Amino acid sequence: MPIGGGAPVAVQTMTDTDTRDAAATLAQIRRAAEAGAEIVRVAVPDARAVAALKEIIPDSPVPLVADIHFDWRLAVKAAEAGAAGLRINPGNIGGPEKTRAVAEAAGRQGAVIRVGVNSGSLEKEVLARHGGQVTAEALAESALNQTRLIEETGFTALKVSLKGSDVLSTVAAVRLWSRLSDVPQHIGVTEAGDALEGAVKSAVGLGLLLAEGLGDTLRVSLTAPPEEEVRAAWAILRALGLRARGVEVISCPTCGRTEGPVAKLAEEARKRLADLTAPLKVAVMGCVVNGPGEARHAEAAVALGRGHGQVYISGRRVAAKVPYEKLIDLLEAEVRRGAWGIGARHDD
Amino acid sequence: MPIGGGAPVAVQTMTDTDTRDAAATLAQIRRAAEAGAEIVRVAVPDARAVAALKEIIPDSPVPLVADIHFDWRLAVKAAEAGAAGLRINPGNIGGPEKTRAVAEAAGRQGAVIRVGVNSGSLEKEVLARHGGQVTAEALAESALNQTRLIEETGFTALKVSLKGSDVLSTVAAVRLWSRLSDVPQHIGVTEAGDALEGAVKSAVGLGLLLAEGLGDTLRVSLTAPPEEEVRAAWAILRALGLRARGVEVISCPTCGRTEGPVAKLAEEARKRLADLTAPLKVAVMGCVVNGPGEARHAEAAVALGRGHGQVYISGRRVAAKVPYEKLIDLLEAEVRRGAWGIGARHDD
Repeated sequence: MPIGGGAPVAVQTMTDTDTRDAAATLAQIRRAAEAGAEIVRVAVPDARAVAALKEIIPDSPVPLVADIHFDWRLAVKAAEAGAAGLRINPGNIGGPEKTRAVAEAAGRQGAVIRVGVNSGSLEKEVLARHGGQVTAEALAESALNQTRLIEETGFTALKVSLKGSDVLSTVAAVRLWSRLSDVPQHIGVTEAGDALEGAVKSAVGLGLLLAEGLGDTLRVSLTAPPEEEVRAAWAILRALGLRARGVEVISCPTCGRTEGPVAKLAEEARKRLADLTAPLKVAVMGCVVNGPGEARHAEAAVALGRGHGQVYISGRRVAAKVPYEKLIDLLEAEVRRGAWGIGARHDD
Repeated sequence: MPIGGGAPVAVQTMTDTDTRDAAATLAQIRRAAEAGAEIVRVAVPDARAVAALKEIIPDSPVPLVADIHFDWRLAVKAAEAGAAGLRINPGNIGGPEKTRAVAEAAGRQGAVIRVGVNSGSLEKEVLARHGGQVTAEALAESALNQTRLIEETGFTALKVSLKGSDVLSTVAAVRLWSRLSDVPQHIGVTEAGDALEGAVKSAVGLGLLLAEGLGDTLRVSLTAPPEEEVRAAWAILRALGLRARGVEVISCPTCGRTEGPVAKLAEEARKRLADLTAPLKVAVMGCVVNGPGEARHAEAAVALGRGHGQVYISGRRVAAKVPYEKLIDLLEAEVRRGAWGIGARHDD
């Protein structure tokens, strides 16, 4: 999984299972990977979690990053257990000697290290030098100290993350880091809120940064399952035209003109086609104002009339007067047939 | 409701009830207004909807915009019914004479007009001049033609919206318009998708625009109830530091270190405090890594330990070892007491 240096921005998430429950954690990692997670982070709070990690790693479909706080020895053990990455926090790893020991273990095991600086856990001495304020400069100073310390040991497989206490402070810190260092950045807006508000905050902050070319890996942090984080992350990348994956369902905001169950059909289409990984735009439109026009922009679409709907493939109407309850069946069948060459087959 | 000319960006939404059902529509308008909608748009597809509008308008807590397609006479009647605004679509209003008649009616009645250009319903002749492609230039040409036509009648209470078929084309069109005209802009990303993906797309697109100072009113279009659109809109404005309203609940992304039911408690806090309109940050944190640190940045917070939690007000711990089931009661009581002077009361 190449990170930085012009590689595509990688999508991360983090498990919220108890890592010590290897089976549950592995199941969640698999769901996240199916949804498009390319790197998954797991919390490693104690020796039992390290033991579980040894069971999880061989069966994980994606590289795993062990998230370590407080105890540097857990980082060493996680590297020895085969973690692809270690995430350590300069604010609580325990000082320069411990950081060096972690870097040496990571070097021996071929693991990468992320130095993850958070506004909530900045070192007291760094905070003191910045008048007690968590500024972009304070966050960057913490990361610079730590990355220099690690680089002095000869270890270079590094990334950093700088997270402020809100969107704008995080944006400012990421921008500052990009001027100070070439070390790749993992970007994210931390402590984000529920699925809707959290996704909005992440999309605003990460959207601004990615549009400027900043960020090498990203996570959308939500108080919601990892799959939802991954879905939101891909939606951000797709909105900016950076990367696309799987089916994007476009549905109209329902209004007083809506003729049918748009939200229900859109959700059904999304679930039925969730296993496809090739980028594909599917539209579910509720009326005749924008419906047919938008249907033509999508690879596959349904536009609803009263009691029935039309199905479009590659801008051509392939069925009309289809009852609501059969629309998504037909759409799915057409899309799956089209997976061997959407567009082309209509020129037969 | 001042729009443009440096006024704060106004939050809009649109009802999805049948406008002809005046009671249901009014109830939805009230819910949207309570959530923070400052302007509400309603679809007016026929004469019965105009009749309902006459019942709705006197009782609406916010100005209403009548959304008109195909039939210019409905726009005239909506203005006569007292709509604060008319939204017309150059692609289907029926030509210059009809547009002038609408402008004259709006002028007589003191209504504003939004010229709403959508990629899905661009005039055929405009599309033809742009090689059949819906470009930013094509969208802007449609809006320019229409606004000039209206301004020639002496009518100036205008705004426009230009909506592309995806986020980047909408962003490009809004940027282009800001260089071509001083007419204020309503911004939104149309046909957006379900709540999560739709909110992400809107947040990316509107976030980029608002960060550049573009946009005078906005709507987050979701296939979800208007209140959710409003919540997402405020979250975007708040993330950018432009405007704030009501309680913002920050909760940690749960992980393998989480000690308690973060998502449940966060949702409970959000619902219990939903009636407050003054900006207030409330944190619900699930562990001891970032919890106490973040708790200090919020006006009110709970940080969870095993089986119980702590409550913080203005960065001070006011209660410890509170059982989970009593945490939000205590938080709510403290916040409501604090509403008469959070912070100050701790200096007593």
